Amino acid sequence: MMGERRDSLDTEGLSKGRIEAFSDGVFAIVITLLILEIKVPEIPTAQVTTELLPRLQELTPKLLSYVTSFLVIGTYWVAHHNAFHYARRGDRLLLWINILYLMCLTFIPFPTALLGEYAPDSVAVAIYGVTLLVTAIVFNGMWWYIAYSPGLLRPETNPRVVKQVTRGGILGLVAYTLALALAFMNPPLSITLQVLLPIFFIMLNIYWTR
Amino acid sequence: MMGERRDSLDTEGLSKGRIEAFSDGVFAIVITLLILEIKVPEIPTAQVTTELLPRLQELTPKLLSYVTSFLVIGTYWVAHHNAFHYARRGDRLLLWINILYLMCLTFIPFPTALLGEYAPDSVAVAIYGVTLLVTAIVFNGMWWYIAYSPGLLRPETNPRVVKQVTRGGILGLVAYTLALALAFMNPPLSITLQVLLPIFFIMLNIYWTR
Amino acid sequence: MMGERRDSLDTEGLSKGRIEAFSDGVFAIVITLLILEIKVPEIPTAQVTTELLPRLQELTPKLLSYVTSFLVIGTYWVAHHNAFHYARRGDRLLLWINILYLMCLTFIPFPTALLGEYAPDSVAVAIYGVTLLVTAIVFNGMWWYIAYSPGLLRPETNPRVVKQVTRGGILGLVAYTLALALAFMNPPLSITLQVLLPIFFIMLNIYWTR
Amino acid sequence: MMGERRDSLDTEGLSKGRIEAFSDGVFAIVITLLILEIKVPEIPTAQVTTELLPRLQELTPKLLSYVTSFLVIGTYWVAHHNAFHYARRGDRLLLWINILYLMCLTFIPFPTALLGEYAPDSVAVAIYGVTLLVTAIVFNGMWWYIAYSPGLLRPETNPRVVKQVTRGGILGLVAYTLALALAFMNPPLSITLQVLLPIFFIMLNIYWTR
Repeated sequence: MMGERRDSLDTEGLSKGRIEAFSDGVFAIVITLLILEIKVPEIPTAQVTTELLPRLQELTPKLLSYVTSFLVIGTYWVAHHNAFHYARRGDRLLLWINILYLMCLTFIPFPTALLGEYAPDSVAVAIYGVTLLVTAIVFNGMWWYIAYSPGLLRPETNPRVVKQVTRGGILGLVAYTLALALAFMNPPLSITLQVLLPIFFIMLNIYWTR
Repeated sequence: MMGERRDSLDTEGLSKGRIEAFSDGVFAIVITLLILEIKVPEIPTAQVTTELLPRLQELTPKLLSYVTSFLVIGTYWVAHHNAFHYARRGDRLLLWINILYLMCLTFIPFPTALLGEYAPDSVAVAIYGVTLLVTAIVFNGMWWYIAYSPGLLRPETNPRVVKQVTRGGILGLVAYTLALALAFMNPPLSITLQVLLPIFFIMLNIYWTR
Repeated sequence: MMGERRDSLDTEGLSKGRIEAFSDGVFAIVITLLILEIKVPEIPTAQVTTELLPRLQELTPKLLSYVTSFLVIGTYWVAHHNAFHYARRGDRLLLWINILYLMCLTFIPFPTALLGEYAPDSVAVAIYGVTLLVTAIVFNGMWWYIAYSPGLLRPETNPRVVKQVTRGGILGLVAYTLALALAFMNPPLSITLQVLLPIFFIMLNIYWTR
Repeated sequence: MMGERRDSLDTEGLSKGRIEAFSDGVFAIVITLLILEIKVPEIPTAQVTTELLPRLQELTPKLLSYVTSFLVIGTYWVAHHNAFHYARRGDRLLLWINILYLMCLTFIPFPTALLGEYAPDSVAVAIYGVTLLVTAIVFNGMWWYIAYSPGLLRPETNPRVVKQVTRGGILGLVAYTLALALAFMNPPLSITLQVLLPIFFIMLNIYWTR
């Protein structure tokens, strides 16, 4: 039945390319907005010389959460292109799953600021973890929809590649579930894991495509 | 006479495609900016463990208004593509109606923040409602201009589709007028309606195009 | 000599189309950022019901400066496309004049916020006026460079159109010089003029192209 | 071995053009966001007439750091197009170096605000200098990777141009290292150098391409 759906996306000017261009715009904006959450510390003029350096050192957690979120969004940008590339065309449901997915992504600056401000408080760590887990769930849902619903995947797609992307996605789900569980038991360990994860996925991305 | 107008948009590099690309940019930015209105609560270090969770729970109305506005803008993005797709070409008046329409859209973060901060105060609810009603009016005006002025609509457009879009638009006008009226009589009911409306329109969008 | 310059822009991937796309991005962002300067008033919970409406009414000057700057930037977006359309190609100097011009444009949110906050103080009015005058000067310089340096203008351009754009530009220069002078003599009159100017230019744009 | 790498970027929809478009978006956003760091001074109503002008004059360092960062980012935008133009295609490593490079660029608003607030404090000057030096290092690394790894550079590229871009890059490295060293010995001289550098590079860009 799904295969029989009358797809009107292309006839409405909302082709796959259009959805990708819009998503690229959102990616570019959210990755650039992150820096706005790091504010310059306010110091009375007389104490700038002695106070500025220590006050800036206090920003280290914010810098770390900035870099982590930047790499997470960068990784998702690459993954998004990957997923959409293997889609033969867009359809109405994919359009709305993608908007839901963009909502998760544009939400990231908030938990990033929260983590930078209150780490290693377990609530802050958990909310950061929940956000990334939900984003991973929606992304995997989108990928599964592309890969396994009839007629959406490009027929020439290498089944090995589909398996690889699916496995990478499940790995992300497992890792972020673990990170979230750790947030309540051992917050610093949870943060360490979450900081390392995007670096691990970047390595994986470079390795798998060699 | 209107049909005889010497249209210089294309000859000035302001083709329909250009207007659409610019609008897409504005849509992507405004939908991503919304999150900046949710600020991390400021809590003294000693009270973070006990205070962070309840303070975050207080952000629920902001989260709800964020999600609502995100979906409203997403819906308008889809509707905009739809409307422009059926236009055979741009013209000078459409260009300026579109800029007016983008002004309504870029204004949305302000009433969103207002609603998140002061709901269910009837003034906050009403201003949110007025913004969405005015946006709906301008969008409908734009669509009617495309659909019913001579020479703008693609000749091959299915009249059933034109009727459907027009009807969807009028439904929006009626619903937001109702929501605005309710803002003064029963603010919580008005909010509920406004939160549900984009979800309803997404359902309608998926259903009508099956 | 200028005509003989070895133009390497195209060979560096910085074609006219690329400069236009980048400029379009800046236009879309700055026009959408304007709203961030209007902050939700902070009111203690107990006084929201009585205080919210009067406090919002105090935002009227901010709303007016928002609408004015939005229309100014919209008008410049149309004018930019116009100017670049008549250029046969980009060149190195045009590239950098354009970056200077974008710097003027991205500066606009600051005097807009200043005017919204402190109008009708003559300093605030004057700084708003200076910004728009400098932007008009740079835009006119860019246009004159395109229109009157050898080899940049499309040979097929109608000389009547060139004259029209030049005249429109000079009209802007005169009007903003007048507005700036008035800022020191009669600030409210200067504001009125500056609020009406973009509306006048939109009318002119619609009229001249009929 | 590097030359034998199976490049899957194009087959994943992440062609060179896609990376360039995404980078262009980030450039446009970060250059437009800079203005948000200049806040309108808060002055009690009674003192606006006497206080506004002197308070605005205090913003001069912020304005100067704004203009400097704007021109730096503008220069990097031109350099980025240049570098990518000479690349025959993208590859996985270039993709991630580019994301690292964009992270440096999107970070610039923070040290810009810091410099505008606390110049000529040597810590503020040094952090601004470090940011621009690291950005220069990453950019040069990216360029060297394009220019000197087998198979990435367009075969038809003029070797004189490659040498010129490499030299310009090294000049930047030396200049920003010098500026950073000066930050600790003579902060005002370091600032002067850093303000003049983008102007010098713009001149160089115009001169070298004549």
